[in-house]
Amino acid sequence: MEKINVIKVGGKIVEDTLSSFLDRFAAVEGLKVLVHGGGRTATSLASRLGIETRMVGGRRITDKEMLDVVTMVYGGLVNKNIVAGLQARGLDAAGFTGADLNLIRSDRRPVGEVDYGYVGDVKAVRAEMLASLTGMGVVPVVAPLTHDGRGSLLNTNADTMAAAVAKGLASYYDVTLTFCFEMPGVLRDPEDPSSVIPEITASGFEELKAEAVVSGGMIPKIENALDAVRAGVSRVVITSADALEGGTTVRL
Amino acid sequence: MEKINVIKVGGKIVEDTLSSFLDRFAAVEGLKVLVHGGGRTATSLASRLGIETRMVGGRRITDKEMLDVVTMVYGGLVNKNIVAGLQARGLDAAGFTGADLNLIRSDRRPVGEVDYGYVGDVKAVRAEMLASLTGMGVVPVVAPLTHDGRGSLLNTNADTMAAAVAKGLASYYDVTLTFCFEMPGVLRDPEDPSSVIPEITASGFEELKAEAVVSGGMIPKIENALDAVRAGVSRVVITSADALEGGTTVRL
Repeated sequence: MEKINVIKVGGKIVEDTLSSFLDRFAAVEGLKVLVHGGGRTATSLASRLGIETRMVGGRRITDKEMLDVVTMVYGGLVNKNIVAGLQARGLDAAGFTGADLNLIRSDRRPVGEVDYGYVGDVKAVRAEMLASLTGMGVVPVVAPLTHDGRGSLLNTNADTMAAAVAKGLASYYDVTLTFCFEMPGVLRDPEDPSSVIPEITASGFEELKAEAVVSGGMIPKIENALDAVRAGVSRVVITSADALEGGTTVRL
Repeated sequence: MEKINVIKVGGKIVEDTLSSFLDRFAAVEGLKVLVHGGGRTATSLASRLGIETRMVGGRRITDKEMLDVVTMVYGGLVNKNIVAGLQARGLDAAGFTGADLNLIRSDRRPVGEVDYGYVGDVKAVRAEMLASLTGMGVVPVVAPLTHDGRGSLLNTNADTMAAAVAKGLASYYDVTLTFCFEMPGVLRDPEDPSSVIPEITASGFEELKAEAVVSGGMIPKIENALDAVRAGVSRVVITSADALEGGTTVRL
């Protein structure tokens, strides 16, 4: 199977160091997909427009006004500047939300203890279309927005979208899913950047949890990574955006 | 040759009556491309952000801040809501700027008496890619933004982009280019909406000008239409967005 890289990069990187990140992304060999965030720019635009940003558990409450803000920032400003930057670097980039080509459909999250508003949980990925595009040499640049199939856009977590794209492509390609963080990987000692754990397997993860080496927010991240490898993704890499290699590899 | 419709719709329509326009657009049979504006929304967002809108001869002066505004509005808010709306109507819509897939490259307009800023004049259309997409059943939804191939987006007139797309597709299809206006067509008597001139040819246009039946801003519009038909577009229709048919047909 041909290899493909699905790389997720957060808002901080695309906002602060976009040009050098795009240089590194362009240098990654072979087929690739970029999934980006942009939350800090959305918060900043909302603030300039007098719209209050409310987060619950790290997720943005998205009323109609905030949906317009994230549609402008993720689907327009961030996405199109990345596309133009990659085209300038010789990549045949094309920007997509989940609405374009019906690539990623979602269900609006049901109202529970929290009403997240126009927030979608991924329901279906049109993986054969994504695979056709990448097979044609296109580099999809995916913004964290989906649609409900009834005309509404929905704000969607970029990590979740990257995992969904990677799982969908696993039927067609040998997929490496890379999550870029500020850290160089999963650390054995959070204070020591040289203590990167090079590989985590499902059984190794149980040991790391039992020893309390991994804890807090790292646990759901690794669980998500294991979920992706169980769904057919060959490997999930957690590394820094400065390197785009090395870091921690999560495998079955 | 298979037929295709390239339909250009201005900001006023996509802003005020989007849903009914999308119903009519979805009902147009066969292959199609939508090119949209969005200037009024851009002006409104700019105003909310304290950014002054300056127009010269109907064209927007686009400094860096205004480029970000139009990128958000045209490439994000307007484009993605149209795409989601068309997907809900069963069309396989996908939104593009000229940067995506390098579809439309432009040159930044040289500074003359006026410095328009980040404004591009269309230089090259990747028509074979557009033709591939439409041949796959995709309905491209094109925002009035291009790129210079060196990483910069450029604000570009939507009428010009629609004509460039239509001319490019003329090598592959029997193209009808439709410009939607508020009027039902080119009127013999501007006060009488029933006085639509059904057909204008190149020689007929000279007579209409000599008789002063057409004047003012209508002259460059018809000249643009004749330019498109000389470049291989089968016909250009000037009609109202309420009808999407009838109106004035410009032919060789």
